[in-house]
Amino acid sequence: MTVRAIPPRREEVSGLVRFVNDYRHEPVDERHLKHLLVQAPAPFNAETRAEQLPQQHITPVALFYVRNHGPVPLCPDVSQYRLVVDMRQWAGVQGAKAGGDLIRQFRLDELLRRFRFVQLEATLQCAGNRRTELEERARRVVRGVGWQQGVIGNAVWGGVPLAEVLLAALGECTGSATDPRALAGADDASESEWFVEFEGADWVPEEARQPSTHPAISSPGYRASVPLRQVLGGAGQTLPALLATEMNGQPLTRDHGYPLRCVVPGMYGARSVKWLWRIALRRGHSDGFFVQRDYKMLPSWMDGEQVDWNAVPPLMETNVQCAICVPAGREVRLSGQEAPALNGGEPHGAPNESTAGRHAVWLPLRGYACSGGGRRVVLVKVSGDGGRTWQAARFLDAANEEVSRKTRTGAFSWRLWVAQVPVAAPCQVVCRAVDEAANAQPDDVVPAWNLRGVAHNTTYRMQVLPPPSTSAGTHPPLAKL
Amino acid sequence: MTVRAIPPRREEVSGLVRFVNDYRHEPVDERHLKHLLVQAPAPFNAETRAEQLPQQHITPVALFYVRNHGPVPLCPDVSQYRLVVDMRQWAGVQGAKAGGDLIRQFRLDELLRRFRFVQLEATLQCAGNRRTELEERARRVVRGVGWQQGVIGNAVWGGVPLAEVLLAALGECTGSATDPRALAGADDASESEWFVEFEGADWVPEEARQPSTHPAISSPGYRASVPLRQVLGGAGQTLPALLATEMNGQPLTRDHGYPLRCVVPGMYGARSVKWLWRIALRRGHSDGFFVQRDYKMLPSWMDGEQVDWNAVPPLMETNVQCAICVPAGREVRLSGQEAPALNGGEPHGAPNESTAGRHAVWLPLRGYACSGGGRRVVLVKVSGDGGRTWQAARFLDAANEEVSRKTRTGAFSWRLWVAQVPVAAPCQVVCRAVDEAANAQPDDVVPAWNLRGVAHNTTYRMQVLPPPSTSAGTHPPLAKL
Repeated sequence: MTVRAIPPRREEVSGLVRFVNDYRHEPVDERHLKHLLVQAPAPFNAETRAEQLPQQHITPVALFYVRNHGPVPLCPDVSQYRLVVDMRQWAGVQGAKAGGDLIRQFRLDELLRRFRFVQLEATLQCAGNRRTELEERARRVVRGVGWQQGVIGNAVWGGVPLAEVLLAALGECTGSATDPRALAGADDASESEWFVEFEGADWVPEEARQPSTHPAISSPGYRASVPLRQVLGGAGQTLPALLATEMNGQPLTRDHGYPLRCVVPGMYGARSVKWLWRIALRRGHSDGFFVQRDYKMLPSWMDGEQVDWNAVPPLMETNVQCAICVPAGREVRLSGQEAPALNGGEPHGAPNESTAGRHAVWLPLRGYACSGGGRRVVLVKVSGDGGRTWQAARFLDAANEEVSRKTRTGAFSWRLWVAQVPVAAPCQVVCRAVDEAANAQPDDVVPAWNLRGVAHNTTYRMQVLPPPSTSAGTHPPLAKL
Repeated sequence: MTVRAIPPRREEVSGLVRFVNDYRHEPVDERHLKHLLVQAPAPFNAETRAEQLPQQHITPVALFYVRNHGPVPLCPDVSQYRLVVDMRQWAGVQGAKAGGDLIRQFRLDELLRRFRFVQLEATLQCAGNRRTELEERARRVVRGVGWQQGVIGNAVWGGVPLAEVLLAALGECTGSATDPRALAGADDASESEWFVEFEGADWVPEEARQPSTHPAISSPGYRASVPLRQVLGGAGQTLPALLATEMNGQPLTRDHGYPLRCVVPGMYGARSVKWLWRIALRRGHSDGFFVQRDYKMLPSWMDGEQVDWNAVPPLMETNVQCAICVPAGREVRLSGQEAPALNGGEPHGAPNESTAGRHAVWLPLRGYACSGGGRRVVLVKVSGDGGRTWQAARFLDAANEEVSRKTRTGAFSWRLWVAQVPVAAPCQVVCRAVDEAANAQPDDVVPAWNLRGVAHNTTYRMQVLPPPSTSAGTHPPLAKL
């Protein structure tokens, strides 16, 4: 049955209203369309205009990208909302006490009263960020929403620690003597590893069609899963995941998951499920569509029908990334008013053999850089000559007076940067980040191409054209991107 | 004073003998020189012959690379050995009880009796692995031992968890009510973050010359430091660091740190200090030479005298890496006996437009791949035509019968792989790994070049030449590497 043929209806899900194939209840009043580039109207998908992104360290809610997979649910009465924690699979394995209630429900006020309320600054990035650029540079069609470099934002999330809620629920309900932290250890990285599955109250056609192997669950809500060891601690990495009710100090808007979403810092945004109503502990990843059949960086030779979705695991942590946002286009024409760079005094921004004698001017740049899993970016390099010579960008961390010392140095936050490069148009400007695990952005788009166009992080490249008044005929033809 | 001018002498360090500028007591009987490529005799520096590396999942001790920075210490009587844990700086901040003993000493038998003995499979890699290749391909001289791709190995380390020893020492000695895990949290990633400093009982001229700001310590031993949050847990990553006494089930040999070394899995080998005699908790990184003035991936424009060592932080976690080991050379001539690839049946190994009609043959490859911080490699791609077309390598994990299920899937272990690519010589074979954080090896050596030639992980490239009998004149000239 096609989506078109499904009659619109509403369902009740744990105190939320799910709209099935019905986009008449979208939060249109909340959407600041003049600040956003709308890439798809229904489901609503909009990115921040690139030039807006590096204007502030904390992205205002009105500018923050929106990635929906279905109609936005409604929460008419927050006192009716329940978060369901399903421990049935866990209990079956761990030998829970007989008769224990293996499904625990939390009211929102109970969560907020009982657990610590914490704030966490974290960058969320859609796995499809920079997808269009990958398609254009590799000259191979990808499948997905056509995103530029603006499906990313940095916010202060407020909520209760996921780990504390899970541990409390397990302690109360399973009566198991086993410390879940031990079981979640990284020493058993096999298929039987434990995961936390999240489900939203939205209605997503792909999820509705995906058969579920989970006991007694056939869920049409958006689903994702993350390794338990990463959100509980243990021998692997630890990500301080939140059950968030606030974004930048205000209650979540409907587009961002009101009344509750999870935020898993350091991972792609696809794992931070909005309108969260159900959490389940399960062996192995979720069998949801977006875990198993999407958000995977398939090998570059898998195209058309030749796709083996089991060839690679689902994307989790984000890779090292940076992009130029100002100027925003990937092809920029000089105005002719730029300052000449012949006597540039900056130590690494001075004209060099590749710009000397070619009417070099200073081109100011502004952008973002980030990495995943709590790894900070330590260096952003920029080049005004296509990668022959490089210089350092300057991080703006210290300039953000409105941001506290603590959040400014957050391991899960982006770093904004500025640079000034000498350019002799036509030429190519390139930027390239390195994170604290010594990973750098790759350069070649051929092996980076993947059918879904996800996790694209090759070095960002921008073509610079001479001013209109300059006779283009005196320059060599533009190099192809 | 030059090293040559320092008179050889011996010193006692916590029950170990330190040889100052004296290489007459090296463990020559332990060294299997026919299996190793000796790159420097004193200090002894030797790597595994590349073709030996992928022959077994666990690298035998006799084949394992040795990276020494000075003369190898001696432990004449293990009952005299003491591990010193210095908590003075910690206690000063945390308000320790008055009169508490802030330096705790452990006998080796006390460590082994009191704490859990665990085994951990982990790959160690020298930060200088593949340095020579970087130098040759970038055509820029680097400073350091001239390593090929064999300064890496995978072993089963046996010992006691560093975190448990630290927590016990802190609990006994400082009387602080503060949980060190909380203090070690990633939310304070500033310069005042806490680190664990390790010192070896070796004598290292660079360390002896480096002025120390640590209270009452002027140490000539090799030093390294790692973030406390990474070895204790908390909101950042957790690496299950060991105080190791065994390697592959046998006591450590002298070259590998007898009687005790630390092993910090997922980080460069430079942080796993051998002949460990002192551990100190301190704010900020160690001020030792190899933390502050070496083992940093400097920006590519810092050369000669233009070096700002504060531009980047010390290398910690390893980046995503892979290399071909069989064939071992970076320029390989076909024998003429290779099987023709015209009717190859492998799905992704079939001849394609770039090999068709050019006498393609199958070239078998064997290599390793790894990443850092507990992140596994999820895909190794190989190309027989310089990167135009790619296919998957096959991981050998499942074929290692001698390795248990548990260690085989270890998050801190390398993955060996094999592949068969169609090649039409002359051509370039390339391999490229992707890890579970979606990081891939970069391609371009120009921005990857760094003065010390460390953390080199650009895509491994091997030139393939036609068989001697083939008239080279019928082929186009070789592309430059």
